[in-house]
Amino acid sequence: MTKYVYDFAEGDRSQKDLLGGKGANLAEMTKLGLPVPPGFTITTEACRAYLTNGAEPAELSSQISDAMAAVEQAMGKQLGDPADPLLVSVRSGAKFSMPGMMETVLNIGLNDQSVAGLTAQSGDDRFAWDSYRRLIQMFGKTVSEVPGEAFEHALDGAKAAKGTKNDLDLDAADLRAIVDAYKKIYSEHVGHDFPQDPREQLEMAVRAVFNSWNAERAVLYRRQERIPAELGTAVNVQTMVFGNLGADSGTGVAFTRDPGTGAQGVYGDYLSNAQGEDVVAGIRNTVPLQDLEQLDKASYDQLMSIMAKLEGHYQDLCDIEFTIERGKLWMLQTRVGKRTAAAAFIIATQLVDEGVIDLDEALQRVNGAQLAQLMFPHFDLSGNPTHLANGLSASPGAAVGKAVFDSGRATEQAAAGQKVILVRKETTPDDLPGMIAAEGILTSRGGKTSHAAVVARGMGKTCVCGAEALDVDIAGQKFTTDGQTINEGDVISIDGSTGKVYLGEIPVQPSPVVQYFEGTVAADADTLVAAVHRLISHADGARKLGVRTNADTGEDASRARRFGAEGIGLCRTEHMFLGDRRELVERLILADTEQEQEQALAALLPLQRGDFVEIFEAMDGQPVTVRLIDPPLHEFLPPLEELAVRVALAQERGQDPGRDKTLLAAVHRMHEQNPMLGLRGVRLGLVIPGLFDMQVRAIAEAAVERIKAGGDPKAEIMVPLVGAVQELETVRQEAEAVLKDVAERSGVDVPALIGTMIEVPRAALTAGQIAEAAEFFSFGTNDLTQMGWGFSRDDVEGAFFGRYLEQGIFGVSPFETIDADGIGRMVKIAVAEGRAARPDLKIGVCGEHGGDPESVHFFHHAGLDYVSCSPFRVPVARLEAGRAAGDASAADSR
Amino acid sequence: MTKYVYDFAEGDRSQKDLLGGKGANLAEMTKLGLPVPPGFTITTEACRAYLTNGAEPAELSSQISDAMAAVEQAMGKQLGDPADPLLVSVRSGAKFSMPGMMETVLNIGLNDQSVAGLTAQSGDDRFAWDSYRRLIQMFGKTVSEVPGEAFEHALDGAKAAKGTKNDLDLDAADLRAIVDAYKKIYSEHVGHDFPQDPREQLEMAVRAVFNSWNAERAVLYRRQERIPAELGTAVNVQTMVFGNLGADSGTGVAFTRDPGTGAQGVYGDYLSNAQGEDVVAGIRNTVPLQDLEQLDKASYDQLMSIMAKLEGHYQDLCDIEFTIERGKLWMLQTRVGKRTAAAAFIIATQLVDEGVIDLDEALQRVNGAQLAQLMFPHFDLSGNPTHLANGLSASPGAAVGKAVFDSGRATEQAAAGQKVILVRKETTPDDLPGMIAAEGILTSRGGKTSHAAVVARGMGKTCVCGAEALDVDIAGQKFTTDGQTINEGDVISIDGSTGKVYLGEIPVQPSPVVQYFEGTVAADADTLVAAVHRLISHADGARKLGVRTNADTGEDASRARRFGAEGIGLCRTEHMFLGDRRELVERLILADTEQEQEQALAALLPLQRGDFVEIFEAMDGQPVTVRLIDPPLHEFLPPLEELAVRVALAQERGQDPGRDKTLLAAVHRMHEQNPMLGLRGVRLGLVIPGLFDMQVRAIAEAAVERIKAGGDPKAEIMVPLVGAVQELETVRQEAEAVLKDVAERSGVDVPALIGTMIEVPRAALTAGQIAEAAEFFSFGTNDLTQMGWGFSRDDVEGAFFGRYLEQGIFGVSPFETIDADGIGRMVKIAVAEGRAARPDLKIGVCGEHGGDPESVHFFHHAGLDYVSCSPFRVPVARLEAGRAAGDASAADSR
Repeated sequence: MTKYVYDFAEGDRSQKDLLGGKGANLAEMTKLGLPVPPGFTITTEACRAYLTNGAEPAELSSQISDAMAAVEQAMGKQLGDPADPLLVSVRSGAKFSMPGMMETVLNIGLNDQSVAGLTAQSGDDRFAWDSYRRLIQMFGKTVSEVPGEAFEHALDGAKAAKGTKNDLDLDAADLRAIVDAYKKIYSEHVGHDFPQDPREQLEMAVRAVFNSWNAERAVLYRRQERIPAELGTAVNVQTMVFGNLGADSGTGVAFTRDPGTGAQGVYGDYLSNAQGEDVVAGIRNTVPLQDLEQLDKASYDQLMSIMAKLEGHYQDLCDIEFTIERGKLWMLQTRVGKRTAAAAFIIATQLVDEGVIDLDEALQRVNGAQLAQLMFPHFDLSGNPTHLANGLSASPGAAVGKAVFDSGRATEQAAAGQKVILVRKETTPDDLPGMIAAEGILTSRGGKTSHAAVVARGMGKTCVCGAEALDVDIAGQKFTTDGQTINEGDVISIDGSTGKVYLGEIPVQPSPVVQYFEGTVAADADTLVAAVHRLISHADGARKLGVRTNADTGEDASRARRFGAEGIGLCRTEHMFLGDRRELVERLILADTEQEQEQALAALLPLQRGDFVEIFEAMDGQPVTVRLIDPPLHEFLPPLEELAVRVALAQERGQDPGRDKTLLAAVHRMHEQNPMLGLRGVRLGLVIPGLFDMQVRAIAEAAVERIKAGGDPKAEIMVPLVGAVQELETVRQEAEAVLKDVAERSGVDVPALIGTMIEVPRAALTAGQIAEAAEFFSFGTNDLTQMGWGFSRDDVEGAFFGRYLEQGIFGVSPFETIDADGIGRMVKIAVAEGRAARPDLKIGVCGEHGGDPESVHFFHHAGLDYVSCSPFRVPVARLEAGRAAGDASAADSR
Repeated sequence: MTKYVYDFAEGDRSQKDLLGGKGANLAEMTKLGLPVPPGFTITTEACRAYLTNGAEPAELSSQISDAMAAVEQAMGKQLGDPADPLLVSVRSGAKFSMPGMMETVLNIGLNDQSVAGLTAQSGDDRFAWDSYRRLIQMFGKTVSEVPGEAFEHALDGAKAAKGTKNDLDLDAADLRAIVDAYKKIYSEHVGHDFPQDPREQLEMAVRAVFNSWNAERAVLYRRQERIPAELGTAVNVQTMVFGNLGADSGTGVAFTRDPGTGAQGVYGDYLSNAQGEDVVAGIRNTVPLQDLEQLDKASYDQLMSIMAKLEGHYQDLCDIEFTIERGKLWMLQTRVGKRTAAAAFIIATQLVDEGVIDLDEALQRVNGAQLAQLMFPHFDLSGNPTHLANGLSASPGAAVGKAVFDSGRATEQAAAGQKVILVRKETTPDDLPGMIAAEGILTSRGGKTSHAAVVARGMGKTCVCGAEALDVDIAGQKFTTDGQTINEGDVISIDGSTGKVYLGEIPVQPSPVVQYFEGTVAADADTLVAAVHRLISHADGARKLGVRTNADTGEDASRARRFGAEGIGLCRTEHMFLGDRRELVERLILADTEQEQEQALAALLPLQRGDFVEIFEAMDGQPVTVRLIDPPLHEFLPPLEELAVRVALAQERGQDPGRDKTLLAAVHRMHEQNPMLGLRGVRLGLVIPGLFDMQVRAIAEAAVERIKAGGDPKAEIMVPLVGAVQELETVRQEAEAVLKDVAERSGVDVPALIGTMIEVPRAALTAGQIAEAAEFFSFGTNDLTQMGWGFSRDDVEGAFFGRYLEQGIFGVSPFETIDADGIGRMVKIAVAEGRAARPDLKIGVCGEHGGDPESVHFFHHAGLDYVSCSPFRVPVARLEAGRAAGDASAADSR
């Protein structure tokens, strides 16, 4: 016979799959001998059976009876006993926390008789009738689907009749009348009377919790959080205890350490003569937990001892909920507590110092997202700035600027050198130019998957969204909040990490963690820096993945090196075709003869060589992977629309459009429907004679110059957009000839690897062939994601990613975290087949995923040699690479 | 000891890997007892050993000596004997024919002494000295790399001195002087004298053939033809025989049947007193083979008997080369002969009737490319039109129109209702609009991989390119050829199947094969139609693959059904948004409110429903796969550039741009960098509420209407561009709700499958997940190729495909034949994993590859249920599907 019901004394915390998170922790506390109100857990297996068959398993009812009997015996009371009723709560509790998604019913066991027994036992008839009222209301809404408004309406009516707005002004008689009204509402909506049988109440409540697993909001939440739909929820049935039975009662929440700062010593709040929901409702002010010592020393001491025991047992910061019922302490919940990023680092190292855990374990207690958060600058709030509103922390950072209310104004002002914050009700693709121009984006509508949020995160731009208190008036170019009006040009400050909006310019403080990485602050400067230093050093010792950086200039390379980069994984050469060199590129494109083309290339050669000399110098002794030119050449020309209008207007005015006409013809000739899928990368190299040769020559000559100066340049030449080994083989042969020529002319041998990006799906699928011609692979996971999914980031991120995230089609944007099932599968195929063909193949990744925590774990388990990311992400990658090396299994790191 | 040398008497035709094609067939003829000049073959293995080690295998020399001794014994002569020299030829012969790619040396064995012996034996001193001259020239050029011009120059000098331009005017003394000059040229260029030792000549010639395997042109040819580089070539050493020793000598080529028409009876040409190369050079006119009966009845009778024997033995049309030396017949070569498309069908069925082969084998003797050729209309040349020039048959078809010389004129004239042929020196992407507007394209430069050829084939447009006799004068808007001038507006006719260009309008005759498929001509109308009917009927019985069609209208569907389509595999619905419905689509796009959007959709519903009713009626009883709307909506609006210029000009003129301004704003808002990777397909369906619902409703209501009328509609609803199962699942749930609603309202149950395109790489890689929500898959191999390779067909076909084909990066465009290694691999993954998840999953393909012969074989072996192609390709697919079912193995059909 399957066991569907576990007494709290039977389970333990390892059984989250079966008992859910809440049930497993209640069992663990019971096992530890802590004072947990007796109860039992109905397993997720029972829920799954119910959902599959549409009915409870046959054995369930008798197992509940047995468990209930044990609880009754432990409490010395009977469920719903008219004289002295045992009351229970029925709460959902799934494996993964789904806050607010499923149902709870309190006070099961009350009915027209037992309400009198509760009155007698508590000596408080208002309390008893209020408890009964709450039962009918929660049960009616949750179990029997009575519209909540019906009850609210009746309650509001009673208060209005009494001339008050406060529940507390209702006395026992009022509440009794409300109970009558509620029962009538119930039977009208449901078609039968509110069930008086406590056991019937219990079974209906359990079934309602089972059903709530498939409620629409729960389904949506699971899709978004990627929680498997087949898990089901457990149900916890637990004896009710009451903190609102007088001054010797109360309720509280506490942490074993300060979750905000990581400071040692317990931390919490207490509210006398109150139930848990009152704390949340914030009706009365709580007192610091320490005050309980005065109020009830015995309970306080017992609580302190329990918290020490729990922390020692869980070996981590715990948070708890407790209730004191007439001087008796009851533990209602515990779990490993959430904490701020700084606290995470500090607590982890404290626990090491206390001998509780070792450094390997400490490393698993922090993560790259936390480290990244610590690297953002933050506002110095010591000046007590005016707080305007709270929104959602959509994209982290601290931004200050003049408020502007449309995209055009934003670009104008930014072009005039002003720092601006773009304020909108919500954004659309039309706002893109303004979003690019602004320091930050603030919206009054939309959640973390709104257009503004998704696009800002994609751009790495500070964003606060959904600040609903703002009344944004676009036509009037202003917003008002709480009586204050902010007009265009007024300075505001927004904090994308906290969602807070302030008036005026708030000073921005640099991150001490960044200062430590920069070397301007010592490793023991403060507790946080010391903790970061210790854990990242440990990660460096543990990690198998190398960490390189994406850098296009000597300056970027130097900074990345200070941040711990062990080479450059991606040096983009197209940036070397911009600025004052654009004119040479135009000459190259507009060349009528091969000779003109050669002249333009020859003029570019020394400029590129100079760039490489700088980069090799900054990265001396470390590998530098140079990607040959990738974008289509027409990207170096002015936009089609602009030229077309200029030429048309010049002709209309009888003027000579001159050079514009030549450029327009070239743009027309080179126009591509889908430039991302056009003449770029290796295709350019194969079609335009001499282009790649010039770049390879610049690299080789720069290396020679460095070697002659005593340096140690390590060039890796990377060919972009290869889809077939024949492409790479052709380029490789030409590049080798150039390297040989430079070596012969200079008398210096140039050691250089030749390899390829793996960024076209076909390259991944034919990696075994391509490895025959490649000394290294570097995954370009941006393009691999774009082509593998068939969407271009620029076009789709704003157009539908928000909708996709809301609908749960994505759990997370595949541009943020690598899509393991699809794109990751190609990575794994290419690693396996590339190495099979060439066992010493070097393999890395240089897409933006290289700095994403979850993706770093994926790349570690996929067996890559290194990741490469932007300089600021290098520490994050180092930390996560260390953590990945300690992952228990090759499973993902969810 | 490895055997590197095979006497012709030792091998047979199965040994092409080892002996090459030519050697294997010489051995086969020897084995059959035919009069083959004695000789031997040095194996491909010897070549491979030589190329790997840079030297001949040690055993080779003695094995050649043994084989040479056997030949000498058979001929009763010694190699290079001064009194009566045995002469040999040395010829390459690889497994796959590489015409003209590698080297040949004739007359090995001649030297300063043996030339006298040859004179004595032949009684012809001019012949002997001419033979010696030829040896030095061929040997010098081929073996010792003397520039060919050096010899040409000396020969021309001698002719000039004699005041002639004809070799035949040189007498023995002249030729003797030229031999002296040649020997001097040889030693000057090579550094030592022309080798007099016949054995040394032989060994040097063999080595030169080995080396020619890696000559640049051979490498390029192999890359283009996808012939593996490691095969190596065999070398055939064969006794020379001479057809130019008098009236009782001669040479000829013959076929066992007419390769042009398939008519029974031998067919060939004979040239008395000549060598093989004289036939090719066309210096004298050949006579029909039948005339040989008068000249030399014994040889003729022997030849007839040999040809009958060969055809019986090879069970197929054979072509042969032979020489008669003083009344003695020698067989120099045989192989299964090439033939025209019509002859292929006719001969295959003749051989069945003759009891030589069965129908299964006959089916393997024809192919879809031949059938496709028979389906093009052709010119009726009975009026003896003026032939202007020959070019390359770049893209088949027969096109007639007025010559125009630039793209702009072509579009203007076409817009005015004129049929035009675009004539250019060569085309560039600028010419694209004109190419689209023209009936056909004619160029004077460029090969079959030129821009014109690649783009025209991609468009299915008639093209003749590289017609070098044309002198095209773009500025003068004319071309001249052979003294004739064709000006703009003059009518010309071009035949893309033969490469011929004619003056004036030639009547175009419909293909009788098409008339047979259309049902306007009976299956026994003529020999060709009867043969096609017989073989395609046999293919239908044999094939495992279903054949459907891509059709968007009832008319197309009906035609395809006559052509044998068994349903529609792709019905594109976006065409239903064009024409006079465009205004509704604009309303949908510009809608400010959901209500306006709904109104626009409601107006489209009955129109779409009407389209589906027609299609269901045409395909009654057969499945109709309808693809929901795929392209981005902005494709239904006017182009950005056009609108921008119109608005700018209106403003400049102080006019109100009106609706253009609204449209421009919409186009700006919806503009995408890469529309192929933008908001289209399922993404549109998920983002625009009601769009897919409207289409599903139109399909369902049309099905209901047909059912009520007694019809049998079989709808399959196909969702485009799915990349993740969550997308499909969401659409599927909504579609099912609409189907249920229509069923409830109408009281008629609508049976419909819901499935998806597999056209995004990620869909193929997660096919196991996607199959959970799909009742069928249809591979969109066009998009899968575009995204898998990362190139958009529109942008790249003209920009670099020609270059890629030339450089051998492609053997064939991946848009013509599916790329088995890359894109095909995704197809195989998706088939295996889709079926594993859902064993009854229906799988087809609806990309253009569905009608490509080689691709059809691939899809058969990949295990698909059906292919779908354009109506005209349906017979090709039927034939190839039948052939694929008879493939000996799952290997590809190269």
